[in-house]
Amino acid sequence: MAEQSPVVGVIMGSKSDWDTMRHAAEVLEEFGVPHECQIVSAHRTPDRMQAYAASAAERKLEVIIAGAGGAAHLPGMVAAQTTVPVLGVPVQSKALNGLDSLLSIVQMPGGIPVGTLAIGAAGARNAALLAIAILANQRPELRQRLEAFRLAQSNRVKEDTLP
Amino acid sequence: MAEQSPVVGVIMGSKSDWDTMRHAAEVLEEFGVPHECQIVSAHRTPDRMQAYAASAAERKLEVIIAGAGGAAHLPGMVAAQTTVPVLGVPVQSKALNGLDSLLSIVQMPGGIPVGTLAIGAAGARNAALLAIAILANQRPELRQRLEAFRLAQSNRVKEDTLP
Amino acid sequence: MAEQSPVVGVIMGSKSDWDTMRHAAEVLEEFGVPHECQIVSAHRTPDRMQAYAASAAERKLEVIIAGAGGAAHLPGMVAAQTTVPVLGVPVQSKALNGLDSLLSIVQMPGGIPVGTLAIGAAGARNAALLAIAILANQRPELRQRLEAFRLAQSNRVKEDTLP
Amino acid sequence: MAEQSPVVGVIMGSKSDWDTMRHAAEVLEEFGVPHECQIVSAHRTPDRMQAYAASAAERKLEVIIAGAGGAAHLPGMVAAQTTVPVLGVPVQSKALNGLDSLLSIVQMPGGIPVGTLAIGAAGARNAALLAIAILANQRPELRQRLEAFRLAQSNRVKEDTLP
Amino acid sequence: MAEQSPVVGVIMGSKSDWDTMRHAAEVLEEFGVPHECQIVSAHRTPDRMQAYAASAAERKLEVIIAGAGGAAHLPGMVAAQTTVPVLGVPVQSKALNGLDSLLSIVQMPGGIPVGTLAIGAAGARNAALLAIAILANQRPELRQRLEAFRLAQSNRVKEDTLP
Amino acid sequence: MAEQSPVVGVIMGSKSDWDTMRHAAEVLEEFGVPHECQIVSAHRTPDRMQAYAASAAERKLEVIIAGAGGAAHLPGMVAAQTTVPVLGVPVQSKALNGLDSLLSIVQMPGGIPVGTLAIGAAGARNAALLAIAILANQRPELRQRLEAFRLAQSNRVKEDTLP
Amino acid sequence: MAEQSPVVGVIMGSKSDWDTMRHAAEVLEEFGVPHECQIVSAHRTPDRMQAYAASAAERKLEVIIAGAGGAAHLPGMVAAQTTVPVLGVPVQSKALNGLDSLLSIVQMPGGIPVGTLAIGAAGARNAALLAIAILANQRPELRQRLEAFRLAQSNRVKEDTLP
Amino acid sequence: MAEQSPVVGVIMGSKSDWDTMRHAAEVLEEFGVPHECQIVSAHRTPDRMQAYAASAAERKLEVIIAGAGGAAHLPGMVAAQTTVPVLGVPVQSKALNGLDSLLSIVQMPGGIPVGTLAIGAAGARNAALLAIAILANQRPELRQRLEAFRLAQSNRVKEDTLP
Repeated sequence: MAEQSPVVGVIMGSKSDWDTMRHAAEVLEEFGVPHECQIVSAHRTPDRMQAYAASAAERKLEVIIAGAGGAAHLPGMVAAQTTVPVLGVPVQSKALNGLDSLLSIVQMPGGIPVGTLAIGAAGARNAALLAIAILANQRPELRQRLEAFRLAQSNRVKEDTLP
Repeated sequence: MAEQSPVVGVIMGSKSDWDTMRHAAEVLEEFGVPHECQIVSAHRTPDRMQAYAASAAERKLEVIIAGAGGAAHLPGMVAAQTTVPVLGVPVQSKALNGLDSLLSIVQMPGGIPVGTLAIGAAGARNAALLAIAILANQRPELRQRLEAFRLAQSNRVKEDTLP
Repeated sequence: MAEQSPVVGVIMGSKSDWDTMRHAAEVLEEFGVPHECQIVSAHRTPDRMQAYAASAAERKLEVIIAGAGGAAHLPGMVAAQTTVPVLGVPVQSKALNGLDSLLSIVQMPGGIPVGTLAIGAAGARNAALLAIAILANQRPELRQRLEAFRLAQSNRVKEDTLP
Repeated sequence: MAEQSPVVGVIMGSKSDWDTMRHAAEVLEEFGVPHECQIVSAHRTPDRMQAYAASAAERKLEVIIAGAGGAAHLPGMVAAQTTVPVLGVPVQSKALNGLDSLLSIVQMPGGIPVGTLAIGAAGARNAALLAIAILANQRPELRQRLEAFRLAQSNRVKEDTLP
Repeated sequence: MAEQSPVVGVIMGSKSDWDTMRHAAEVLEEFGVPHECQIVSAHRTPDRMQAYAASAAERKLEVIIAGAGGAAHLPGMVAAQTTVPVLGVPVQSKALNGLDSLLSIVQMPGGIPVGTLAIGAAGARNAALLAIAILANQRPELRQRLEAFRLAQSNRVKEDTLP
Repeated sequence: MAEQSPVVGVIMGSKSDWDTMRHAAEVLEEFGVPHECQIVSAHRTPDRMQAYAASAAERKLEVIIAGAGGAAHLPGMVAAQTTVPVLGVPVQSKALNGLDSLLSIVQMPGGIPVGTLAIGAAGARNAALLAIAILANQRPELRQRLEAFRLAQSNRVKEDTLP
Repeated sequence: MAEQSPVVGVIMGSKSDWDTMRHAAEVLEEFGVPHECQIVSAHRTPDRMQAYAASAAERKLEVIIAGAGGAAHLPGMVAAQTTVPVLGVPVQSKALNGLDSLLSIVQMPGGIPVGTLAIGAAGARNAALLAIAILANQRPELRQRLEAFRLAQSNRVKEDTLP
Repeated sequence: MAEQSPVVGVIMGSKSDWDTMRHAAEVLEEFGVPHECQIVSAHRTPDRMQAYAASAAERKLEVIIAGAGGAAHLPGMVAAQTTVPVLGVPVQSKALNGLDSLLSIVQMPGGIPVGTLAIGAAGARNAALLAIAILANQRPELRQRLEAFRLAQSNRVKEDTLP
């Protein structure tokens, strides 16, 4: 990509979410998409969250990927304070296995959208791939790379054999 | 009570929540507790929410009751921005009957508490009663009133007859 | 917007989903975003679905919004056959109130993302708003309109009064 | 059985599903039912899935057993593209323990049926037994074998003793 | 079909289940499949159930469709006493909307399979269609009719228009 | 107790349920209640189940405790075939943690009751205690023993200390 | 029955539960079992509950049927304070349809059992039938009546016809 | 704080709950809040529970924190017998992961409130923090300490770095 500065922001509610969210970062890395990763807690650092959301557009972020668990308010609250598209990743929680995270992220009221992915690592990975698909609308070379990725993924399945 | 200005703030995410939250207001009214009711949307008016939370302590609020439905972020986000005790009321949602509201409110991460009540009108009513119990710790006449309320409630059950 | 031909495709599994999905169409209409609405059933018209997905990129669609209920396979199966970003709307189902629709759409395996919105009308509305946010990355006038929409939405809340 | 070529196809969304689906294969093996096992991913190899479904009838498959996890679209999408009976096995998923897989497979809309079995290995085993019961309608020797299997199974329970 | 006597048995736990199960009967009727419909309660008429299951094979039934709600034991208990393939239809229950019916039917232990369809009318309809697909394996004219049905169903979707 | 022959029957669907159901046997042992333990599978040995239920009253059983997991039909099917009181113990299942077992046992239709206890070992233990309470209605010395048990249980709690 | 004074106590948490619990009373009436019905609220009249439980044995109650909804503590708390067998009926709650009532009643810890029936009217009816089965252990004429009831119930099913 | 005698009571249903509830005690310790910890079982020591609740106000407790699992009746039953504010902590249960504990505590009927926190250790920790916030209404130095705690918590997040 032509950009040097981040076009995707990956944020998460706590350091312990990194184990999930690094899957998003790895995909962005693999596709060469400039991005940044930060801990931004809705509950413990609301001011940082507000600042992050408020500056996202002018900092030329085109997608924000936000992961959180339990009463997961980060994706929705960031979305409430920016018009940059926000994707949410429900982190698997201890007691309820991420069902609480999922419902807290996806059941947003009409007016403020969060595009929600699956619970856990698959969701983090897919958040990055969806961000790439969004960016690819205006970046033909990224779409080509995405199509190559899909083809390779398809071929790997076709080459897999059962015992 | 001696106070004239509100000691309890009742807030809710949208006007449609009033049908639930008025049950809190009615109980506070009945006990003569000075209170205020406002619409404060976490998602649609994050600035108002921030201002409300930030000024709560100096405005001498002693309890905030926050009701919201679906991905219900209001109680937790207010709690994140004030040290005034916050009670949460899950409003019954259309598709998932308030299970989403409940989990979004109650499953807060360690560090920022929200005391959560039952889904719907019973929860709103109980939020007010819990606020009164909290206030009553330092206001003997309010505790007396609460005890009288309990006694009357108990007597009503005892006077009920089955067909 | 400069475009005349559709940049957003709104598809749904059956005619009965229109009652939910028209909320997406109305928002796109309101923002002047060229779009198309079609019935495309994963189960009953898999060939149409395949053709729709396969041609989406060359037809210059930038977002596909797919709504479906129950074992809701449409969003995921379209996403599997295009690199255009796909947003999924879980339609509220009769027996399980859309919990089945939600899980069928959101729990995609790593590799094929669907950005999932809330169950029902709020989700349809938000799918359109997220599509607009995506488009707005490269269309400053659309972002302005989105910011104005947010401001108006915020003001409506602030003007609401409780009884 | 008289047939040499497969009459039952066992397919699964990914190699990792084999740990579950091998229980189906083992039962078919035990009953001497000609069968084939393949990885066919709805999301990652939609073309292979389409080809598999489209050729099933002319290849004389009489039952297709399809296993998948999470947003499990394989059984329903294969069923949409063939009139050969399809049985679905929900693979136990990581976060939601297969509840998502189950609902994604069983809640098919009217018009395209998938006969769904239990989550996990018991379901895979039973899918094979149900396939055998279906085949046995026209193959008396297979029904005899099934009845013998049932009798032996019953006897094993009767011979079990508690400590 | 050549047969005059029933090849499909449609049974249900109580008369009130007819409202759901008639959808199975109607499809069988439409396809000209000889069938019978009876009330057979696992809990209230266990002897009738036992007799029904025990005689099914010799009466040349090739599929049994069993519908029940709540703690829905009929499909599994019939399956336990015959080797004729059994399909289960979870009837929507009052309190839990059929989630109890679904789990009671589908979560059979390894050894006794029940092919389970969706909760409610769609499931009843699909049970009949799956029975027809099973019968069609050996009845080419039935498969043709099924294929024609699918084509017509597909065409109806394609002719549907949105407002 | 005066009786020598069993007054309580403890049955379970498979040998693997013993790990749960032995907790019932241990309590009965501790109280000196004559009882028997058997494997009786609703699905794999329906004839044995029928015989067990049919002879229970004349064999002077006063309570049957039945444990089962998944689509747990044993308690309800035994109850359908005897007027001896039946208590059900939901065994914790692998995928759904016993929620399926619980709903399959407790949601019986009006007419055939099963008194259901908690999922797992606590439920097995309590089934025995409830059986003892039932027997104790006519056996004063058993009631005394039950009261002594309760007192001892209460005292153990009172003697427990926190670190 | 020989007794004139109540042998079964039917209690419920509030007057509004009567609509459910009257189904228990009607069955006891039908069988001529002396019984009493009272409102006893665990939360609003804990003293009455304590007194009720403490006197149950000496008042010669042989079964207590307790119905409650939501956080349904009545059955378990009565069971904690008597050794008379307690049966619990989960009343269908507004938001969560009685799933909360069910779990609050059935998931008792080891040591204090509550025999739990289905949610709602069917559960109330079955609680009475289970109470009758318990009483019938020592009252042959009641067992005869129960067997006659079962036979009549069975015959009604057999006489039912489908449209 | 000025007080020497406990102002917060931490109680739990069994010794095994200490592993969860110690997180509440540790926070109270850290803030120097005089408190007491006891085992008080609703089911096994109802008399102790009654005595604890009845004396709480005169012993000058200002908040009671009650933790329990499964059919968790302790918080609600204590709340029924005192006007001191009660906070409930759902302990994670074995089979249902604390969903039963949560619903048993939070779904209290109108009239008797329990302020409920998250399932498990985070909930215990937050119960203490909410108790402190309640106490802080009348103790400025405690509020300062709470604000300092929040600031430190916020700073720790800001200092965290990702790998």
